[in-house]
Amino acid sequence: MKVNINADIGESYGKFVMGNDDELMTMIGSANIACGMHAGDPTIMVRTVRLALDNQVSIGAHPGFNDLWGFGRRQIRMRPLDLEYLVTYQIGALQALAGSQGAKVTHVKPHGALNNMAHDDIDYALAIGRGIKAADPDLIYVANAGSRMTEAGAQLDLRVANEAYVDRRYDDTGKMLSRERGNAMIVDPEMAAKQVIGIVEQGAITSVTGRKIPANVHTLCIHGDEPTAVPVMRAVRAGLAKAGIEIVPLPAMFN
Amino acid sequence: MKVNINADIGESYGKFVMGNDDELMTMIGSANIACGMHAGDPTIMVRTVRLALDNQVSIGAHPGFNDLWGFGRRQIRMRPLDLEYLVTYQIGALQALAGSQGAKVTHVKPHGALNNMAHDDIDYALAIGRGIKAADPDLIYVANAGSRMTEAGAQLDLRVANEAYVDRRYDDTGKMLSRERGNAMIVDPEMAAKQVIGIVEQGAITSVTGRKIPANVHTLCIHGDEPTAVPVMRAVRAGLAKAGIEIVPLPAMFN
Amino acid sequence: MKVNINADIGESYGKFVMGNDDELMTMIGSANIACGMHAGDPTIMVRTVRLALDNQVSIGAHPGFNDLWGFGRRQIRMRPLDLEYLVTYQIGALQALAGSQGAKVTHVKPHGALNNMAHDDIDYALAIGRGIKAADPDLIYVANAGSRMTEAGAQLDLRVANEAYVDRRYDDTGKMLSRERGNAMIVDPEMAAKQVIGIVEQGAITSVTGRKIPANVHTLCIHGDEPTAVPVMRAVRAGLAKAGIEIVPLPAMFN
Amino acid sequence: MKVNINADIGESYGKFVMGNDDELMTMIGSANIACGMHAGDPTIMVRTVRLALDNQVSIGAHPGFNDLWGFGRRQIRMRPLDLEYLVTYQIGALQALAGSQGAKVTHVKPHGALNNMAHDDIDYALAIGRGIKAADPDLIYVANAGSRMTEAGAQLDLRVANEAYVDRRYDDTGKMLSRERGNAMIVDPEMAAKQVIGIVEQGAITSVTGRKIPANVHTLCIHGDEPTAVPVMRAVRAGLAKAGIEIVPLPAMFN
Repeated sequence: MKVNINADIGESYGKFVMGNDDELMTMIGSANIACGMHAGDPTIMVRTVRLALDNQVSIGAHPGFNDLWGFGRRQIRMRPLDLEYLVTYQIGALQALAGSQGAKVTHVKPHGALNNMAHDDIDYALAIGRGIKAADPDLIYVANAGSRMTEAGAQLDLRVANEAYVDRRYDDTGKMLSRERGNAMIVDPEMAAKQVIGIVEQGAITSVTGRKIPANVHTLCIHGDEPTAVPVMRAVRAGLAKAGIEIVPLPAMFN
Repeated sequence: MKVNINADIGESYGKFVMGNDDELMTMIGSANIACGMHAGDPTIMVRTVRLALDNQVSIGAHPGFNDLWGFGRRQIRMRPLDLEYLVTYQIGALQALAGSQGAKVTHVKPHGALNNMAHDDIDYALAIGRGIKAADPDLIYVANAGSRMTEAGAQLDLRVANEAYVDRRYDDTGKMLSRERGNAMIVDPEMAAKQVIGIVEQGAITSVTGRKIPANVHTLCIHGDEPTAVPVMRAVRAGLAKAGIEIVPLPAMFN
Repeated sequence: MKVNINADIGESYGKFVMGNDDELMTMIGSANIACGMHAGDPTIMVRTVRLALDNQVSIGAHPGFNDLWGFGRRQIRMRPLDLEYLVTYQIGALQALAGSQGAKVTHVKPHGALNNMAHDDIDYALAIGRGIKAADPDLIYVANAGSRMTEAGAQLDLRVANEAYVDRRYDDTGKMLSRERGNAMIVDPEMAAKQVIGIVEQGAITSVTGRKIPANVHTLCIHGDEPTAVPVMRAVRAGLAKAGIEIVPLPAMFN
Repeated sequence: MKVNINADIGESYGKFVMGNDDELMTMIGSANIACGMHAGDPTIMVRTVRLALDNQVSIGAHPGFNDLWGFGRRQIRMRPLDLEYLVTYQIGALQALAGSQGAKVTHVKPHGALNNMAHDDIDYALAIGRGIKAADPDLIYVANAGSRMTEAGAQLDLRVANEAYVDRRYDDTGKMLSRERGNAMIVDPEMAAKQVIGIVEQGAITSVTGRKIPANVHTLCIHGDEPTAVPVMRAVRAGLAKAGIEIVPLPAMFN
């Protein structure tokens, strides 16, 4: 058995340091690398690509809105065509910088508010998908399980990686609990480990009420900016090892 | 006989319109396309690529400093390594967007203050060269004839296109007259045509005093933002046609 | 009888030229000056302030979203508190630059998508109002007649200038026709003049069906970026002169 | 006896956190607050103003180049007039936000590469001075002792605060040792305290060779981003208290 764990990495910008990339990179299977619009800059992108290579972590683009101040977390209404090209732009920039280090971009995961909007908005989900396909039709589109993005990816004949979260709780319909609720995040490392193993072994997400929602999950995301990220990942890795489940780079999930 | 004419194109930004791309694109052999840092945005880049395809004009990246306010014309001192990656970033973004339209980026010409600084600064010239090579070693590095950029290109085993100007006068050492001097620009269309034909037929630039400076020029740049650009190019095209000299895309100069 | 005409001015940015400020400034009573976020830069702000002074035009801040690419026309969801401070920031920057030229900022009009969102969203309308009041409680809040902004201004004890448009048609509820409809804009100069005079003389807006909607309008906005702006304003000025209605700076509407 | 200690504060940006403002603010007399160009944003500016008020710390603007990526540390060549207006813009923005909290901006200190360039370049030093004077002629211009900025301030009839560093060593001409030299920074808290007390009591800077260079220093800068800043400031405060020297807000140095 195998599973992929992904995290957002390379979200520093110039002198502004964000996250704990060095430690997180040793614990995951795939890195979503910021591409200069909500965070990241060319130098940090190269540094992050090298760090991924050193840790045999597969590389994805993490395109976001062009909004440094909002860190890509402010919803922006734009024409889908502009969005499509903005996505290709960011992937292309990372492809060239990754290529310069002998690495290849193999997946794309939308960032922040863009990801949230595309979850429910088919126009955004399709624009992102077309932007991905234009850059490389072999790229894997990482999409929240059950979102419009999975639909868009299918429609565009892209490989779609269904995503769930290591550290978020789910309701009976398979949706994440809103962050406005106190119990949305799983901060207890053992419970996070249990959730991940459950998803892999049972092919289902277990809701807060104990209901099983069948889900073919390829990848689990860990929020690297949470203070509990490192202890949570340690427990998840230990739990997976014990259960005989291997953490693999994302493309290996499609072999 | 053949020659290439290049111009800076695609320097609008969002709702801000710059230049006269539609007309200029019908008159040149190669377009230097802004990549989002000093001008240009993903949507304009796609539009410009399509316009180049429609006119059989070859496509180049036109990387500049990340300085919209200064339009890339303010000198910025930065670490050569940051510059190298900034160049690759911009080329990569254009490569992906061009690729999405079935086009290929075949040359790179630095923009504005970056071009001016690299003219004399070997660290900048080399950083740009490494940034080009990292994106694609077959890219042609467009460099002012006699600059440190030609040296850097040679050192890095890149193809270098020596560049002169359609509409600038030269001194006896082969340098352009400073724009602070009243006669730096050639605004008379016939004189511009004469200069271009002279350079192609004689393999030499003629200075203001009449001196011939041998120069192996592959490409001549026209300043698209000059009010005289269109009449100048009309005269140049007519003159070249009469002299039996063909305007070709830049890669054809290396066949 | 008197009325104010306002227009958005100073929306160039660095080398990027936008609009026809020199001509428009001779025709209006008040200028809404961009403050560097969606357009405008410090140098253009000073130039625009001087142009306003030369033409006895009163000066207003025209704060927008921090979005040069979208020219402030993309809707951005942000925290009202961040918006409030963003508004004060922009007003303060203009106050200092205006002050350096011996001029005073006397009104504020939100730009583009910010204006559109605040039309219906009381949280945005109040955040803008608080941002205005923090900068100077004597500033006039320019607000679409009937919008939540007029409500917010009243709640905050600000002077509110009710605004209608020189060149937009209205429906029977007093709302502007959507720009998606072909007849939303009035492009005929005589019809625009008639609309303005009707609003001033009758204290009412006349809808497309001929219905009169009572409205206490202090200021009428002309879209400077429309190709018909100059001929429209010429007809409006001629019509107002003939009807004995004076165009005055905005503060004079509150005397 | 009294002295001012200043530090750069409020250099976070959106979600990007920089520095240790909460602790540093309790230790200094004056804060140089970033104004949104190299760092800082409207929300952070307000937060920082409040923190200064809570700690009876006087407030200054810290204008920098418009260069988030470079954190204002890249030298940018621009027209002095553009620089002048850019400085007024930033001061004005802070004045309005400070005013909204009942606080007043009383000094201005240029940031990073702008400060370095103005040290030696009279055109930049004067442009900054004119930009300050335009915003408020009572503002204190903080200038490295012996720089062209002190000259520019005097020429413009501004109050100039001569500045030395808590944590930098000086050569026999009164210049700071280059940061390229290993011993440029004073990391030992006791030595820093000794340097500060020596400057206050003797009216002279002591060079690395022991030479006394007379200097009328109004304010000493502590680099808040150095890892040793907090222990250094603790020792400086203890040393000053023991020597009976009071740390005061900058305006108090001119009473």
